[in-house]
Order: sequence, then structure tokens, then C-alpha cells
Amino acid sequence: MEFSYISHLHCPKCQKEYGFVEIQQLCACGSPLLVDYDLPKLKKNWTLASLVGRSNDLWRYHELLPVIDPKNIVTLGEGMTPLLRMDRMGLSMGIDHLWMKDEGIIPTGSFKARGAAVGVSKAKELAVRELAMPTNGNAGAAWSLYAARAGIKASIVMPVGAPVITRNECAISGANLNLVNGLISDAGKIVAQAVKEHDLFDASTLKEPYRIEGKKTMGLEIIEQLNWTVPDVILYPTGGGVGLIGIYKALKELIELGWIEEKLPRLVAVQAEGCAPIVKAWEAGKAESQFWEDSKTAAFGINVPKALGDFLVLKDIYESGGCAIAIDDASLLEEQKKIARLEGAFVCPEGAATFSAARRLRESGWIKAGETVIALNTGSGIKYPETVRVEVAVLEPGERMTRG
Amino acid sequence: MEFSYISHLHCPKCQKEYGFVEIQQLCACGSPLLVDYDLPKLKKNWTLASLVGRSNDLWRYHELLPVIDPKNIVTLGEGMTPLLRMDRMGLSMGIDHLWMKDEGIIPTGSFKARGAAVGVSKAKELAVRELAMPTNGNAGAAWSLYAARAGIKASIVMPVGAPVITRNECAISGANLNLVNGLISDAGKIVAQAVKEHDLFDASTLKEPYRIEGKKTMGLEIIEQLNWTVPDVILYPTGGGVGLIGIYKALKELIELGWIEEKLPRLVAVQAEGCAPIVKAWEAGKAESQFWEDSKTAAFGINVPKALGDFLVLKDIYESGGCAIAIDDASLLEEQKKIARLEGAFVCPEGAATFSAARRLRESGWIKAGETVIALNTGSGIKYPETVRVEVAVLEPGERMTRG
Repeated sequence: MEFSYISHLHCPKCQKEYGFVEIQQLCACGSPLLVDYDLPKLKKNWTLASLVGRSNDLWRYHELLPVIDPKNIVTLGEGMTPLLRMDRMGLSMGIDHLWMKDEGIIPTGSFKARGAAVGVSKAKELAVRELAMPTNGNAGAAWSLYAARAGIKASIVMPVGAPVITRNECAISGANLNLVNGLISDAGKIVAQAVKEHDLFDASTLKEPYRIEGKKTMGLEIIEQLNWTVPDVILYPTGGGVGLIGIYKALKELIELGWIEEKLPRLVAVQAEGCAPIVKAWEAGKAESQFWEDSKTAAFGINVPKALGDFLVLKDIYESGGCAIAIDDASLLEEQKKIARLEGAFVCPEGAATFSAARRLRESGWIKAGETVIALNTGSGIKYPETVRVEVAVLEPGERMTRG
Repeated sequence: MEFSYISHLHCPKCQKEYGFVEIQQLCACGSPLLVDYDLPKLKKNWTLASLVGRSNDLWRYHELLPVIDPKNIVTLGEGMTPLLRMDRMGLSMGIDHLWMKDEGIIPTGSFKARGAAVGVSKAKELAVRELAMPTNGNAGAAWSLYAARAGIKASIVMPVGAPVITRNECAISGANLNLVNGLISDAGKIVAQAVKEHDLFDASTLKEPYRIEGKKTMGLEIIEQLNWTVPDVILYPTGGGVGLIGIYKALKELIELGWIEEKLPRLVAVQAEGCAPIVKAWEAGKAESQFWEDSKTAAFGINVPKALGDFLVLKDIYESGGCAIAIDDASLLEEQKKIARLEGAFVCPEGAATFSAARRLRESGWIKAGETVIALNTGSGIKYPETVRVEVAVLEPGERMTRG
């Protein structure tokens, strides 16, 4: 039994293959690279029983992860986040089996910890000393903290509009933090220039191949938590789309391993009306998206005007029989409140959008009665204090409590 | 096999016994009540193997929890938080085996979720419709959200100085939130009056017997995660002290069950110099603490001038051969930065204080070479943005990244 069954990397556009013992960024053709494993060999050596007694984090799936030597693992205990029944929300929208995969319950409070844990671990294995990346906040926070744990220097560029708490996370970790008066695309250009000038490791979304492997574990966990059955629909808030690509990749690997039946959930890319390039492309049946001008949404994590992996996201939606849908900010903020009041979960605006999407898709009949639906909440609401307005009186000691 | 082996409640002061099928608050003598289980019977029926395949949350220990019917469980997936090696921090202070139990990775971002999950579940089982409590922020947030999930109405009173994000959590859950221009002791008086006037369930710290049972699971988990061995020292940031009392209770139950050897870790109550009533009492060898006038600390969660359970905390420290120590704010905030830079963990100020305490106790020789030490981080740093100062330049699109 090897620790990892990684075999090589390949380009999904031109099919060129690459090794995994040296640093890789994009394919020569400009496409992101994907990681392959020796699944036939793993299929022979691995059974469900192999998982018994393993660590309760994403490293329980180490054979399907790219880190070769366990001593390179940089972990803060990420993964195996709760899969929660959302019965009262389900009732409110006529969905019998509604679940939330809650990625707020993870180091750094967002699903970005998964990509950072695996990406930084592999970077450590490849002896990376300094990395740089643009971010909408949460990814930069996660990579800063994991890089600190690994002893890797991190430079982070984020829009001034990104959640303020993510600045704190970068700063306290000792990362080199830069803000830009623009969007993540502007931050990306600044990072690209620095990478070129200073020969840094480029940890931008999909510009290194391993972040997606970390995100993939969301798919593995959902399936294990559903006792190795496949749900009908998974709704995913889509900015860069790495999680959606990763979940789809996980499912296909599990099918090839024979661990699940040959059925794929319909993947739904949920975007904001103020930034919906994938939705626009999907509606037009296109293979790629176009840059979305003047994008704007309260769901800051999905304010990505053009994703490098858009063609993969669209391919996965088409193949799985899924769809793409845009939600307006007012609706998703209203949904966020409803989730807290009915279910006691304070989710991030991006996560709330997936519930709005489920509600609309059930109304339209796209989600059918009796189906099992997973809404993915990508982060904790406590990172977005500005989404909640609190107006309460301040009592003096000895005064009487109001009764609400 | 019963789901819960709860047998009765008892008063640790006057030894009076109470039943568990009706609502109980304090003992008639004014003391908090503790929960007892039929441990001899459980010892016969339960083995370590019983835990295999159980849910990875605190409910895996349901036999040692007070909820009788599993359908009353109100859960957001709380518990089994990471126990992380802190090797670089350990090296910096000469402690060979330093671990952090990270209670930031839990619903609502603080260990208060444990008390709320078990307390609210039991309240639901007892048909409570409306509860009230004072809070330093995190407990109110947790109880608000769990109460919302349970369909119980919650009234919360917190100091204006409590972490702002905890207001948002209460508000979005639909709780009746009141702020008071004072301390938690002032909030407590306001709640006590409302409880009396409106016959509400009083969910104040230790005024209901079940919160402590939720906190207890931190002790159970630490022991399970150390593969059923007992550490030498556990450091706990002590405000109300419920977690410390709970961890000690868990250890004694495990000894009675024969699951661990008859050895107790030395419990360390860590307080802030600006609010150290337990430390003062311990230094004087007293059995109870005195109200701490004009208390003040950046570690807001441990700004508790007089804890109802102080006599239990002090008893547990004495019995376990532990100690109590106060840390100044400057030191704990400096420690918070060091933890982020060396270990990639953004902990709360209360949690940082336990590392400062470990450092001093190792310097003084109280912690000896080779000992296994657990520092308990009670919450996520992302709930305390004001502890980090961020000063960075804002770039315009096209400008060059700084190199830090």
C-alpha cells in the first residue's frame, strides 16, 4: 500500500502529460493541469474497511491525494465537516431530503482551508519557499495560515472590498498582504507580474494543480456521509468553480474505484445576478464564459468575472445534466436569515444563495419531489458581519429586559 | 443498552438529590446541580468497541449525556474538534509534547456550542418554550442559534463590550437581544429579574445542570484523541469555569468506568490579570472567590468577576494538584500573534492566554521536561477582529506588489 496513488498530471485541453516530482503550474497550452491516480491498482488494494479508525479529516482519503510522504502534511484538522439535515428549510421549499454540507466548521471558517491544506502540503513536499496569490479573501486567509504552519512565505493580493476579517487572518499569520482598489482580476494581474519578476510559486486558482485535490474531498465526504450513496442534486456557489470541478472529479474516481454506482448527481452552479458569467454561458450552451463587466454582489466569494476553469465547470454541468442559476442579492440575504431562524445555522451569503437556488429549482419542477438535495455552504456567516443589521437598545444596569 | 445512563441530579454542596424528568435549576440551597449516571451498569454494557462507527461529534458519548430520547437531539455537528500538535510553539517554550484542543472548529466558532447543544437538547426534551440568559457573547450566540434550531424562544442580555459579531449571531437567529452598559454580572441581574417576572427557563451558567455535560465532552474527546491516555497538564481559560469543571467530571467518570488509569491531569485555570478572582482565591488557599471589582481584559470571555461555580473550580484545581495563573493582556496578545506565525492557527485571546500560561509554568519548572501538555483554545480568532491591527497600502490596478 502506497500512501498516495498519484501517477501523473495531465492537461484536459491538449492531453499533454506531466510529472509530479517537480513544480508544475499551467500546461504549456495555458490550461490548468489535473492530477491522475493509479485507480486500477488502488481498486485492488483498498476497501471500505480501510477507512475504519482513520483520522477524521480529509487526510483519511490520502490514497486519493497527491502528498507522497505523510511527514509533509500540513494540517489544522480540516475536513469531515458536518452534513446536516435541513428539515425545516426543506419543508419551506417542498424538498423532502435537504441537507447542508457545512464548510463553516473548518479551520479559517471557509472551505478554502481544504485547497490550502493540500496545496500547501504539496508545495512543502516540492520545497517551495515562497508563494503568491490573488484572492477574494478567504483563500488568501487560508493559504496564509497554512503557509505559516509550513514555514513558507506567502504574498497575498486582495480587493479592498473583500471581507475585512480575511485581512486580519493574513496579517496575523505574517503574510505579505497587499490590497488593490479593484477586483480579483486586478489582483491576479498584480500577482502574475510579481511571479514573473521574482520567480515565485504561483498559487492562483488552478494555476497549481493541487488545490483542486483538496476541494475534491468535499465530494468524497458527502458520499461517505450518505453511506456511499449518491445524492440527486448538489448545489454549489460558483466563483472560480474549483470545488465544483473537484466534487465532480471525486465522483468519477469513486465510480472508477467501484465504490458507488454509475450515477452522477446533477451539479448546479449557483452565481449572483451581479456576476453570472457561467450562467450566461450555460444558458447560451457555450463551452466557455466571457468576462463579466462591472461585477458586484454581497456574496463576495463568487464575485469572479472570469474563471480560468470555466470550461471545466461548464463541461461538468453539461455532463451531469445539471444547470446554472443566478440569484439576486436581496433574495440570498433574505434566505440567509431564514436559515438562521429555522435551522440555527449562520451561513455565509454564498452558501445562502444555494438555498435560494434550491427553492427556485423546486418551484420550477427542475428538482423533483422525493429527491435528495445537497446545498453546499462554503463558509461561516461570522466572517460576514456586515450582512446582518443589529439595532437594539442599550440598557443601564438595573433596567428591565425587553421581551422582544 | 439505554441511550442515556442518567440516574439523577445531586447538589455538590448539601448532597440533596433531584430527578431529571422535570425542569431543575439551582438546588434549594443555592448551589448548582450536577448530573449523575449509572456508571456501574454502563461499565458492564459498554466497551471501547461501542464507539466504532459512531457519529463524529459529541453525541458519540450519548450514554454519558443527559438526553434520553435521540429524537430530542438538536445538533449542528458540534464536537470532535481537532487536537493539534503544536511542535514549533512547544519548541519555543521547551515543552516537548504540546497540543492544542481547537474549539474554534465548531458551530458558532466557540466551545460554547457544546453547552448549548446539550443544554438546548435537554431543554427541548423537558418541553421548555422560552429561555433567558446573560452572556459575554459567545454563549449567547450559541444558545440563540441552537434554540432557533429547536424552535425555542431565547432572550439574551450581553454587555455592550462583548464581541460585536456575537450580536449578529443572536440577531440573525431571531433571538430577543438586549445589551447592557455594564458587565456580565449586570446582565445576570437583569436576566434574574426577567426570569422571576415572566417564569422563563433560566439558562444562566450553572443555573441549569446540563450545559456542563456538553462541556464535559471536551475531556472525553481529549482522552479518546490521545488514545485513552491521560495528559499531564490541561490549561483552561477560566471565566465561569464550566469547561474546567466539566473536563474534571469527565475524567472521573472515565476512571470509574475503568477506561483510563487512575491518574488525573493537573488542571490549570488561566485568567487575565484584569480579572483574576480564581487566581487570587487559589493563591490564598481559599475555597471560594470574591467579586473582582472593575474587571477589564481583552480576553472578553474570561471577564467574569465572580463565577457561581468558583468553589467547584477551586476544588478541582486543588484535587488535581493544579494551579491558577493570571496573564496580562499585552502578553496574551503577543502570544496570539506567535501562534499564528508559528502554527498557522488564529486563536481567540482567551485561548492565547493558555499558551502564555504554559510558557510561564515551564519557565518556573512547574511544567516539567517531557510532560504532555494540552492548551485549550476556546474559540476562533475570527470572532475577535479588533485584536489584530492591519496597516497596508492600497494599490491601484496595474501597480506593483510590495515584497513585504
